[in-house]
Amino acid sequence: MDKSVKEFLDNVAAKTPTPGGGSVAALSAAISCSLAEMVCNLTIGKKKYADVEEEMKKMAAKMAKARQQFLQLVEEDAKAFDEVMKAYKEGGDAQAALKKAASVPYETASQCISIMDDLFVIAEKGNKNSITDAGVAALMAKAAFHSALLNVKINLKYIEDEQYKQEMEKEMKEMIENMEEKFNKVMEIVEKWL
Amino acid sequence: MDKSVKEFLDNVAAKTPTPGGGSVAALSAAISCSLAEMVCNLTIGKKKYADVEEEMKKMAAKMAKARQQFLQLVEEDAKAFDEVMKAYKEGGDAQAALKKAASVPYETASQCISIMDDLFVIAEKGNKNSITDAGVAALMAKAAFHSALLNVKINLKYIEDEQYKQEMEKEMKEMIENMEEKFNKVMEIVEKWL
Repeated sequence: MDKSVKEFLDNVAAKTPTPGGGSVAALSAAISCSLAEMVCNLTIGKKKYADVEEEMKKMAAKMAKARQQFLQLVEEDAKAFDEVMKAYKEGGDAQAALKKAASVPYETASQCISIMDDLFVIAEKGNKNSITDAGVAALMAKAAFHSALLNVKINLKYIEDEQYKQEMEKEMKEMIENMEEKFNKVMEIVEKWL
Repeated sequence: MDKSVKEFLDNVAAKTPTPGGGSVAALSAAISCSLAEMVCNLTIGKKKYADVEEEMKKMAAKMAKARQQFLQLVEEDAKAFDEVMKAYKEGGDAQAALKKAASVPYETASQCISIMDDLFVIAEKGNKNSITDAGVAALMAKAAFHSALLNVKINLKYIEDEQYKQEMEKEMKEMIENMEEKFNKVMEIVEKWL
C-alpha cells in the first residue's frame, strides 16, 4: 500500500494471479471507508450540524480504523492465495490453505455489512452537500461485498469438507439478503437528496 | 496517481470535497480495467487458450488504454468540481462549470458500458482459473457506473437549462437498462464456473 496507485494497478494487471479480485474487493471497501470518513470530516465543525458533531467524530475515527483493517485484508488475500498455490505445488495441506483463502474474503464481506450500517448513519445525519459521496461509499462497499463473496465461492468449490461448505453457503445467503436491505436503506436517503 | 495508495486514500478521507465520489468512480473503473487486463495476461501463452491468443492480446492492450483514460478522468473530475466552487465564489459562469462537472462523470459512465462489452468477451473466452477476477472486474465497473451517475445527477440538480437536463435524464435511463443487461450477461458466465 506504500506503492503508487499506478504501480498497484500495474501489479494487478500483470501476468500473476495476485494481487487479484480478492485484494481488489478489500481495496474497494477501504475506498468506501475513506469516502465515508470524508463525509464525516465535512460535517464536523459546521454550525448546521453541531447536534451530530460528536457522533460524526466517533464515526470518522471508526471509518479510519476500518480502512486500515481493509488495507490489511488486501495483503492477506494475496498471501492466502499464494499459500494455496504453494500447498498444491509442494504437496502441503491444500484443504487447510483453501479454508484460509475462503476465510479472508469472508471477513471482508462480513465487515462490509457492518460498514453499511455506519453509512446509513452518515448518509442520514452527515453533511447533505456530500450526500453523493455517501452514496458512492455505499456502492463501493456493496461491490466489495459481492466481489469478496465470489472469492469465497471459488475457494469453496475445491474444499471437500461438506459440512463447512454447507454452513458457509447458508451464511452467505443470509449475508446477501442482509446487504441488499441495508444498501437499499442507504440509497433511499441518497436518492431523496438528488 | 503517482501518490501511494495510502496517501490517495488519506486525500479522499480529508476535510476537502476533492478527490471525492466522482474521482472514486473513475478509479473504480480503472481498477476494473486492470483486473480485466490481468485475466487476458493469464490467458496469453497458455496452450489451452491458443485459439483466442490474438484476441486476448488485443483486449489486454485495449484494457491498458482504457485504464489510462479512466485515470485521467480521476483528475478531471476533481478539477471540474473545483471549477464549480470557484465559479460560485468568484461570480464566474457557474452554469457552464456545472455542465462540465456533469459531463466528466457522464463520460466515465459511458465508458463503463463499453468496458462491460469487453468483459463479456474476456469472461467467455479468457482463462477460467481467473473467472472470479472477470466477475470482480464487472462488479467494479458497475459500481463505477452508478457512482458516476450519482455525480451526474447532483450536478443536474443545479443546472437551469431544462432541455439539457431532460436529454441527460433520458440518456441516463437508457444507460442504466443497458448496463444492467450487459452486467447480467457477464455474471451469468461467471456463475456457471463457480
